[in-house]
Amino acid sequence: MNKIYNPSRESWSTILKRPTQTVSDIEDIVDTVFTEVKKGGDSILKTYTEKFDGVSLDALRVTKEEVNQASLYVLEELKKAIQLAKRNIEEFHKAQKTERVFVTTAPGVDCWQEKRPIQKVGLYIPGGTAPLFSTILMLAIPAKLAGCKEIVLCTPPNKEGKVNPAILYTAALCGVTKIFKVGGIQAIAGMTFGTESVPQVYKIFGPGNQYVTVAKQIATKYGVAIDMPAGPSELLVFADDSANPVFVASDLLSQAEHGVDSQVILVSTSKELLDKVEVEVEIQLEDLPRKEIAKKAIENSKLIYVNDKKYAVDLINEYGPEHYIICAEDEDFFIENVENAGSVFIGNYTPESAGDYASGTNHTLPTNGYAKQYSGVNLDSFMKSMTFQKITPDGIQNIGKAIELMAEAEGLQAHKNAVTLRLNEITKAISSEVGKS
Amino acid sequence: MNKIYNPSRESWSTILKRPTQTVSDIEDIVDTVFTEVKKGGDSILKTYTEKFDGVSLDALRVTKEEVNQASLYVLEELKKAIQLAKRNIEEFHKAQKTERVFVTTAPGVDCWQEKRPIQKVGLYIPGGTAPLFSTILMLAIPAKLAGCKEIVLCTPPNKEGKVNPAILYTAALCGVTKIFKVGGIQAIAGMTFGTESVPQVYKIFGPGNQYVTVAKQIATKYGVAIDMPAGPSELLVFADDSANPVFVASDLLSQAEHGVDSQVILVSTSKELLDKVEVEVEIQLEDLPRKEIAKKAIENSKLIYVNDKKYAVDLINEYGPEHYIICAEDEDFFIENVENAGSVFIGNYTPESAGDYASGTNHTLPTNGYAKQYSGVNLDSFMKSMTFQKITPDGIQNIGKAIELMAEAEGLQAHKNAVTLRLNEITKAISSEVGKS
Repeated sequence: MNKIYNPSRESWSTILKRPTQTVSDIEDIVDTVFTEVKKGGDSILKTYTEKFDGVSLDALRVTKEEVNQASLYVLEELKKAIQLAKRNIEEFHKAQKTERVFVTTAPGVDCWQEKRPIQKVGLYIPGGTAPLFSTILMLAIPAKLAGCKEIVLCTPPNKEGKVNPAILYTAALCGVTKIFKVGGIQAIAGMTFGTESVPQVYKIFGPGNQYVTVAKQIATKYGVAIDMPAGPSELLVFADDSANPVFVASDLLSQAEHGVDSQVILVSTSKELLDKVEVEVEIQLEDLPRKEIAKKAIENSKLIYVNDKKYAVDLINEYGPEHYIICAEDEDFFIENVENAGSVFIGNYTPESAGDYASGTNHTLPTNGYAKQYSGVNLDSFMKSMTFQKITPDGIQNIGKAIELMAEAEGLQAHKNAVTLRLNEITKAISSEVGKS
Repeated sequence: MNKIYNPSRESWSTILKRPTQTVSDIEDIVDTVFTEVKKGGDSILKTYTEKFDGVSLDALRVTKEEVNQASLYVLEELKKAIQLAKRNIEEFHKAQKTERVFVTTAPGVDCWQEKRPIQKVGLYIPGGTAPLFSTILMLAIPAKLAGCKEIVLCTPPNKEGKVNPAILYTAALCGVTKIFKVGGIQAIAGMTFGTESVPQVYKIFGPGNQYVTVAKQIATKYGVAIDMPAGPSELLVFADDSANPVFVASDLLSQAEHGVDSQVILVSTSKELLDKVEVEVEIQLEDLPRKEIAKKAIENSKLIYVNDKKYAVDLINEYGPEHYIICAEDEDFFIENVENAGSVFIGNYTPESAGDYASGTNHTLPTNGYAKQYSGVNLDSFMKSMTFQKITPDGIQNIGKAIELMAEAEGLQAHKNAVTLRLNEITKAISSEVGKS
């Protein structure tokens, strides 16, 4: 672990630099797959599934029977855990629902804002050794709560043409409408264009390897939205002497086991704490099954000592961590001054794993410094806000003159005209009323 | 105008097709400018300003004196109009502020969501003959309300090296922090990388020509967010016999004057109404200063007759218009069934111009069908939502077992470990308490 004492502001950008990803060589492959899927549909999806997943499929869509079967293979204990997580995630995301915002901005001018669901969304869940059913909870639950009509899930099959039972169980539990055995670039392309069996969607969510990440970027060129740009997962811990070094070490390692490019940073106002954590990391590392991965990530990690908490906060905001753990005596100071972070974990008994699985918050969060301008996935990610307005004849009389002046100053005469014609009509109506009386 | 009666569902995609934009040839130019600005900073911005705007500038930043001077050149009447618009826009966007969402998902597990401002935002305002000061209102007001610290505005200077007074007046009125005389690709590149004088920003907002549009797309590759992807402006009107054909024609024309590629569609359940509007458009067109532009847009516009309002709604949702005017007897039916639209204008006395300038709603809206998945600019566009959680020892005992099971099932042992160590510590503390008593 790299220990750094009192880094100068000038050195921050170097110290906090994230690993750069080169994607240009991947872009060509992605473009090819997209072009082929657009033309060839299902048959191309099957060709690539055979090529990359080593299995030849008759049907891409997972059947009801397969889903029912899967449920039998998930341990009752795990089902209960998934249900508990579901309940908490549901409760937290349901509370994010906002009411219609209604404002009468001037007499006779009613304006309101309403959120309505994105009709069709696509969720991508990676395959591989670890079945990421927790990500289904994080995406399908808010999609369902938002009211999305079509919730499509794509995930690669294994060599037997099957999908992990925990994935199928969770998808069914959370209201996914259609599940497809297709992964990688071809899955993203399928949801972008639609094929005979895979529906075209308006927004694609979910994690993936660098191929999937680039495919999602390319999908935006074809009019599809994505949850957010992705990068390697990261954790920054601020801890002072009030922190438990054993817990801090375990949190750093839980981040480090994600991948060799995971980012792990510990900032402290206590040199003693840094030393203790360093020792603890070495001890705990030994027993981890994913030790080799974690070890590499830890080698690149940083332990940063600063002698002032204000300085610490500035440095942390400059980094904008995806996950941010605060174990500090004066935790309120740190909470109040968070400007950029995906999700914040406070106190000794709040491990990052809690938010990854079951506390209720979402684990799909902005990495790579995107916490500076992107939200993590939340209920609004599955909706769009629209505005409405209704103006009465009185209302247009109240604001019409201003519109005319502004439209004219911008050189848009027809914009002005649309108001003038209405104002004239009102004047005419009034004079004819006056004439009658 | 193209009149279409009862188009079949199969024909919708052809009828509703938007003009395709070719951007690949522009991308090379944009890449070049970006690379140069990244290296050369201010001096490159000045070189391009000389090349494209025909003026050699000493300083890019607009001075306080220039802003004060500008105010003297804006008519008092126009200032009042801008102030009225500001008040309405402010009121509508202020009402969008949401409170902290706080949920105790399980005893001892507190989760909350808070929105915090994006620290630095950039607003782009095009130059040219029409000074779009109304767009400054639409962007700077919510930026200020959100609490953005740095609100940078870039706009190209004229040949005398000056910026239109109405732009400077509005920018100062709405709390823009820094104004720069730089436009086009170079302005977007400047805000993306930062130069000696232009600050680097985290999110860029605002309209522009195709060069600016592509530049904004490229900016996202460098980690900057943008308000939304852009396309030509568009209006769809649904009108039945309750609509005033003179008003409908004026609204269609106010859209058509934007540009030759503007999209104008009228859907109706009344053939008579279609005929009347067609005649009115010809009459009103004659007097418009931007007649030639409007005429071309109108030539490509469509008058669509359908004999059933449900069918009309389906067609409209398939299109997903940026602006959507409803002039119908049964307006509630149309309001309730809007699935995809940027902003909705209801009734005979609600022209689109009202929302463009002064009613209070935002005029930066999703075009090109993006209303299916993107929100128009609103208060939240200038903030990001973050989550927080604080768990007590009791709390982690309540959800710890579930986290352990799920982490293990996903093959992430260190994630499990972070919980196990904490649960063990609690058990130890309890037994030592029991031992003492």
